[in-house]
Amino acid sequence: MNKRIVLARLAGSSPVPEDFRLEEVAMPSPGPGQVLIRVDHVSLDPYIASTLRGRHMSGGVPVGGVIPGEAVGTVVESRGDGLAVGDRVICRAGWQQFTVADIAPAGVAQGPLSLAAQKITLPDGVSYTSLLGVLGMPGLTAWAGTVKMLKPIPGDTFVVSAATGPVGATAGQLAKRMGARVVGIAGGPQKCAFAVETLGFDACVDHRDPDWVAKLAAACPDSIDCYYDGVGGRILEGVLGHLALGARVVLVGMMEQYKAPAPLPGPNLVPIIKFRATVEGLVVYDHWPDMPNFRRRVAPLVRDGQVIVREERVAGLEAAPDALIRLMDGGNFGKMVLDI
Amino acid sequence: MNKRIVLARLAGSSPVPEDFRLEEVAMPSPGPGQVLIRVDHVSLDPYIASTLRGRHMSGGVPVGGVIPGEAVGTVVESRGDGLAVGDRVICRAGWQQFTVADIAPAGVAQGPLSLAAQKITLPDGVSYTSLLGVLGMPGLTAWAGTVKMLKPIPGDTFVVSAATGPVGATAGQLAKRMGARVVGIAGGPQKCAFAVETLGFDACVDHRDPDWVAKLAAACPDSIDCYYDGVGGRILEGVLGHLALGARVVLVGMMEQYKAPAPLPGPNLVPIIKFRATVEGLVVYDHWPDMPNFRRRVAPLVRDGQVIVREERVAGLEAAPDALIRLMDGGNFGKMVLDI
Repeated sequence: MNKRIVLARLAGSSPVPEDFRLEEVAMPSPGPGQVLIRVDHVSLDPYIASTLRGRHMSGGVPVGGVIPGEAVGTVVESRGDGLAVGDRVICRAGWQQFTVADIAPAGVAQGPLSLAAQKITLPDGVSYTSLLGVLGMPGLTAWAGTVKMLKPIPGDTFVVSAATGPVGATAGQLAKRMGARVVGIAGGPQKCAFAVETLGFDACVDHRDPDWVAKLAAACPDSIDCYYDGVGGRILEGVLGHLALGARVVLVGMMEQYKAPAPLPGPNLVPIIKFRATVEGLVVYDHWPDMPNFRRRVAPLVRDGQVIVREERVAGLEAAPDALIRLMDGGNFGKMVLDI
Repeated sequence: MNKRIVLARLAGSSPVPEDFRLEEVAMPSPGPGQVLIRVDHVSLDPYIASTLRGRHMSGGVPVGGVIPGEAVGTVVESRGDGLAVGDRVICRAGWQQFTVADIAPAGVAQGPLSLAAQKITLPDGVSYTSLLGVLGMPGLTAWAGTVKMLKPIPGDTFVVSAATGPVGATAGQLAKRMGARVVGIAGGPQKCAFAVETLGFDACVDHRDPDWVAKLAAACPDSIDCYYDGVGGRILEGVLGHLALGARVVLVGMMEQYKAPAPLPGPNLVPIIKFRATVEGLVVYDHWPDMPNFRRRVAPLVRDGQVIVREERVAGLEAAPDALIRLMDGGNFGKMVLDI
């Protein structure tokens, strides 16, 4: 039998336990050119909450459909060339124990939304699960926004929200290596301490502190040259007021939106004019062709402990809904990975 | 005696008649190196309303201070070299019949906030008042945002708000000459007809129509590649939803803000991510060094009727407060010039 978690009903604002249903179904069977995969690790990411409401750009989940998610798995049956039993693969398996997938043709880059199983070539000295976080979609998102778009230079003050998540932590550490002064924004003193002590940020401000905007300004005495934002809303508003002249802002996500019942108004935009700022939107799918380049450069840094992303591991399919709910409330601490 | 209009009290949201006071004072007297100027034409612009609340970046007006404004005048007494009686000058005279000003040194470009009087070298075949509109600060604002920042190319759909004002009308006509398809947004059928029939825009949508967003989308079947915005708020929100992938947006003003008692929330920013848009803020002061280049290129187009800006002339200092109030409500039609 195959256990899986499906969407019980279209989610409202933040996901709640009643949105999910665990079910057991017959073991799927691979057709010609396909493999049966045992799912080992599933990535939990904020975008998933949007798909549960039917409004993410990667597509919505139909009621009764398996909750989506990138995964690392192991081939247990193969009916095609290119993948053999025991091979480790990456695929969009979703929240289930087993899945059937097409075999991705060798040497052909798969798009970010491809459901085909791709054989993992693991860079030296890194873990399989890093391919779901610091060396996967979140890491590439950080790379694209930091290295390709914001391009911090020595002397820049670089601010990043959700600073201990896999995107923010990678963005901040890359900016630090590019010579910037890096200031994080995170929820709670524990995360802030981690950002400074472990990730090597110059400062980190707790956005749960009522005075956080004043503390951010104090931590950025030369104003903010680059802002990498995955949160939007009041966090973005607080940062915009302290931009430097000619500042660059990348918007990569609107975490606050994902939990709201309807689209929220944005921050006041006068500072964009006042500071002659440039604001750009980032969708990681556009940067997929850069994945090999990104991995080639960042994997050695991960191996050597120069780029760190903390993982929070959650055990068992049954724990997935609560873990996603916690992720959406900022109650996680680091990249969330579900071990099946 | 010199008549002038001063700020009677710090303005609240939109200016009201009680914010202004007409007073008569002794005729000012030029010192060495100064001239006495008879003010002929004063430019009425939206930024003035912000100064009355003490919060424009050019500085606020103190209570009792003369309401600011760029002006064209005539030298009636000179106590320095470089300007003689009868010379026409441009200066920041404000709302008064006479003013005293330093003589700007010959051949030295004056900054946008300089109070010195600069001798006018009038390009062939244009009017003095065009230097306050299509060939002045509003025109340069349009030039900077369109030619230097948005850079529309043939095939682009270029949308501009406040389409019949001196900024919007110039921006749209420049974009048209650069090969774009130009769609205006304006208040009322008369302005929309003018934008299409006289300015040569491809379409113009009346934002007072409750269905204006749907009509904008219909007028932009290939989505919106460039958006030049001086309004912000609900107009910006409506446009953002119909951007093309990789769209560019320039924010040059927030007309809606200028009338509000407190800073307003902005539009939802998810479309910036969804469409991978780039949003930039424009302050015309940064582009002042480009004024000669802009005038050299655009003055012949104005002379030949290829770039048109409609003027609305208002007569007499006493009429200025109502004219500014009307401007802030969109009740004007074209560039507002006060004839003293």
